[in-house]
Amino acid sequence: MEANGSSVPMKTGFIVPARVNRETKPDGTIVSVKGTELGGKGIVIIAGPCAVESSEQLFETARSVKANGAKILRGGAFKPRSSPYNFQGLGEEGLKLLREISMETGQSIVTEVMDTRQFELVSEYTDILQIGSRNMQNYPLLKEAGMSRKPVLLKRGMMATIEEFLLAAEYILNQGNDQIILCERGIRTFETSTRNTLDLSAVPMLKQLTHLPVIVDPSHGCGLRWMVPSMAKAAIAAGADGLIMEVHYKPETALCDGQQSLSLDEFSLLMTELKRIAVAVDRVIL
Amino acid sequence: MEANGSSVPMKTGFIVPARVNRETKPDGTIVSVKGTELGGKGIVIIAGPCAVESSEQLFETARSVKANGAKILRGGAFKPRSSPYNFQGLGEEGLKLLREISMETGQSIVTEVMDTRQFELVSEYTDILQIGSRNMQNYPLLKEAGMSRKPVLLKRGMMATIEEFLLAAEYILNQGNDQIILCERGIRTFETSTRNTLDLSAVPMLKQLTHLPVIVDPSHGCGLRWMVPSMAKAAIAAGADGLIMEVHYKPETALCDGQQSLSLDEFSLLMTELKRIAVAVDRVIL
Amino acid sequence: MEANGSSVPMKTGFIVPARVNRETKPDGTIVSVKGTELGGKGIVIIAGPCAVESSEQLFETARSVKANGAKILRGGAFKPRSSPYNFQGLGEEGLKLLREISMETGQSIVTEVMDTRQFELVSEYTDILQIGSRNMQNYPLLKEAGMSRKPVLLKRGMMATIEEFLLAAEYILNQGNDQIILCERGIRTFETSTRNTLDLSAVPMLKQLTHLPVIVDPSHGCGLRWMVPSMAKAAIAAGADGLIMEVHYKPETALCDGQQSLSLDEFSLLMTELKRIAVAVDRVIL
Amino acid sequence: MEANGSSVPMKTGFIVPARVNRETKPDGTIVSVKGTELGGKGIVIIAGPCAVESSEQLFETARSVKANGAKILRGGAFKPRSSPYNFQGLGEEGLKLLREISMETGQSIVTEVMDTRQFELVSEYTDILQIGSRNMQNYPLLKEAGMSRKPVLLKRGMMATIEEFLLAAEYILNQGNDQIILCERGIRTFETSTRNTLDLSAVPMLKQLTHLPVIVDPSHGCGLRWMVPSMAKAAIAAGADGLIMEVHYKPETALCDGQQSLSLDEFSLLMTELKRIAVAVDRVIL
Repeated sequence: MEANGSSVPMKTGFIVPARVNRETKPDGTIVSVKGTELGGKGIVIIAGPCAVESSEQLFETARSVKANGAKILRGGAFKPRSSPYNFQGLGEEGLKLLREISMETGQSIVTEVMDTRQFELVSEYTDILQIGSRNMQNYPLLKEAGMSRKPVLLKRGMMATIEEFLLAAEYILNQGNDQIILCERGIRTFETSTRNTLDLSAVPMLKQLTHLPVIVDPSHGCGLRWMVPSMAKAAIAAGADGLIMEVHYKPETALCDGQQSLSLDEFSLLMTELKRIAVAVDRVIL
Repeated sequence: MEANGSSVPMKTGFIVPARVNRETKPDGTIVSVKGTELGGKGIVIIAGPCAVESSEQLFETARSVKANGAKILRGGAFKPRSSPYNFQGLGEEGLKLLREISMETGQSIVTEVMDTRQFELVSEYTDILQIGSRNMQNYPLLKEAGMSRKPVLLKRGMMATIEEFLLAAEYILNQGNDQIILCERGIRTFETSTRNTLDLSAVPMLKQLTHLPVIVDPSHGCGLRWMVPSMAKAAIAAGADGLIMEVHYKPETALCDGQQSLSLDEFSLLMTELKRIAVAVDRVIL
Repeated sequence: MEANGSSVPMKTGFIVPARVNRETKPDGTIVSVKGTELGGKGIVIIAGPCAVESSEQLFETARSVKANGAKILRGGAFKPRSSPYNFQGLGEEGLKLLREISMETGQSIVTEVMDTRQFELVSEYTDILQIGSRNMQNYPLLKEAGMSRKPVLLKRGMMATIEEFLLAAEYILNQGNDQIILCERGIRTFETSTRNTLDLSAVPMLKQLTHLPVIVDPSHGCGLRWMVPSMAKAAIAAGADGLIMEVHYKPETALCDGQQSLSLDEFSLLMTELKRIAVAVDRVIL
Repeated sequence: MEANGSSVPMKTGFIVPARVNRETKPDGTIVSVKGTELGGKGIVIIAGPCAVESSEQLFETARSVKANGAKILRGGAFKPRSSPYNFQGLGEEGLKLLREISMETGQSIVTEVMDTRQFELVSEYTDILQIGSRNMQNYPLLKEAGMSRKPVLLKRGMMATIEEFLLAAEYILNQGNDQIILCERGIRTFETSTRNTLDLSAVPMLKQLTHLPVIVDPSHGCGLRWMVPSMAKAAIAAGADGLIMEVHYKPETALCDGQQSLSLDEFSLLMTELKRIAVAVDRVIL
């Protein structure tokens, strides 16, 4: 295998880059976050609000998802929003709230970093650095993540091929950081009845091509609260190593993505169902 | 609800047509094929070769998939092929072979009809009329199917929206035939590592909007044999009422779609796994 | 070159089929319709209503587009409509009206054929058989067109690759009919501000790969009346051999596609502009 | 019109944001770069290599495109490349070469900025800041550009809707910078015979919705050198205010995008043809 990537020709012209290539690590990479392992037999559930809005909203949501099995808490402090007039996140104030509640619940934290200038600040507070869909090909950001010692949750670009997704991960690995979690979150197609088209075939494809753990975000994938449970179950049946889901204590008042956020009760019910699917594919929800 | 369709506004402008609308039949339609019911609690497995090639190929495949639980046998006699130089199917000879083996195994038959002039002939031999992806908006064909007394398996066009898919079914229902099985089979996107992108979110979406049974074709959906099991399991977890899969006794020599056909052993193994997933969603493979 | 198509490898795996391949006829095919030649230096304008609605509507529109330079009259008698509740066309009555006005204006006629059983009837009335976008992969229809002695206007499927478009034309040529006009009419993408995305790069691509004439349908391509002139001009600058456009004497009352139909005055003005573009690329509007 | 954007409802739900909205400035914005005006009657040609590779390569190319009418020189010093193993650009050394040759030829310079930390450096050398396709939704970068006093060339994301493109421009305008040039450069579709699908309907659509100048990049739009002239002509016929094209003194040895770069002679010939098209739409190449 050449240094510039090679081998495992999928189809003519398709090359899996060298460092992410499963051949270099047939047993797979385990990403370990404060003792929780992604990429092994266990399935990890990440849940929380789209954006941190207030201590009440964050704390109530965090306590509830923790009680129902979410090992990791998600919550955006810096939000990439299509319109400059939308809520852009609480910034450092949001990061502080995440730390406060995580010290209480013992959950790990994942939050997004959008700007190379934010790495130092965000790294102080978070356990996992998220690189969002819109930044999957933001190469300075990927390189910075590669120089970090924190695990990175890399979301697939909403119109990125599998090949480009792997190359984005290669940018991070190439800087020395192999603690990468890949996340399928829906791609853009002509279909408009769902927000995106969740591409679950990406799960077995990525598991085949790379040694990195693969999780699914059914919330962004379909954009419809009532559809999240079906797609969450399907993701686990397809072989996902984890799920990241938006949950809000009052979805109807959420400042962002309310229509795709599960309520606390819906999340609780779903966790029961997910456990049964996990068993049916010889795995277990951690 | 108006005669020209209405109600259940999904999003602005999205209208579910009147006759396929779940509101008109909240309990759902059961499509009954020689005693096998699609659309109830049971999950129906349809399997067989892409095309009927010979008595040996068809009979060996049919006996094996029957023994492993496929209630319905698929096999093309008239094949829609992108190139005029590809194998176009055995025609009536293929239909005769389908009838011969079905009398032995007791399976029902599903085979494609491509031309309004073929309805009489194909109807003599088949139990279910398949309308293929390329013909989803072939309105004379849909109307003819609507006047038939046979159940119709309608495949989603490879670039059809959910809305158009429902309108195509409405063409059939509007002629008086409500025995329609909808089939998600992958849509065309920018992604090229898979043949199509299997849109599993179509399953809960269609189940929500219409009373018709919904099945999934993971073979065409991903186009890769090794990926079919993962996607078949995911389809059932997502709520599908059945699966249609390509199986061939010697995939490597198949005249059509060999790279996506399961071998007899692979199918047998998969059926064991599917039973476990079905139980985990409170259903059962028939 | 092999009988099953070959040569001119565009990219790995892309094969231009044998009979449509420009290499087999470097000077290009001229399609001649009652003395009007498509595929030569002249540019041919086809115009008329989406559907034939009445003698008044058709006749007024036809006279006006004729007076402004449309050599060929378009008008649908059998209409493929997404919904069964939409106007489906006047059928044979529409064909008779097309013949009546064409005898007065001297224009040739192009109208769509949707069903293999309609060929005999439609061929009695029309000069060019149109195969619509939804039927680009309706192989029985393509074969029937290949056995006809009428020129065929083949529209690109809204989801068809260039490769599939050429294979569809090959089906017709393979039956002995080389009088084929290819028509780019917009493809389906994620963009929703236009009805389709008009793929003008298809024009030079097709001119490069095949000897058949290539025209453009800006009306369906963008779906917005005000945008048709810009895209019509761009199509000619890109090298199109003709245009097919929807024109209606009262667009706001049209039974079909009114929002994309030019008024008589708009068409008249556009023709003036098109002549200037044609000259700038060393061609002439016939 | 509300501060959070509004009016000009295109279709249900489609809102043109307030500051980019043509209604706020019906006469259009003129972007002025050292006396060259974009957005007026004149058409501006921007040309140069994909990446700055060496003084010889840059200088020979710059002199030639200048002699043939390119008012503005393009050239990448920081290159966003899908693979970390591809040439990433010369960095500041490239910027210095751009300044050196621009002082000789008198051309203005446009070069890409990829990282918020690079603004100060890049701004020292360039006349126009380019924000590339992959960064169209890199909001920190957009905000930084909005605080700059340099004109910004904003490329449409390869997956971006028109609506999102306008919102990205709104981010810049919202910070006080209205010197924005919008650039259509091809979108991602299922078609694979071209690198992207150049969406020329974006030109009239953007001109209708916003007051900002609109240019087209046919090089990335189709990715094939031989096709660039056809699409360049079509772009001007469609109403573009300018073109940005890749030109290389030895395309076959280019370190990046050689297959889509025009040779010096091809560019020279194309300029002659473009002048004729410009006249045919009552404009003039500056």
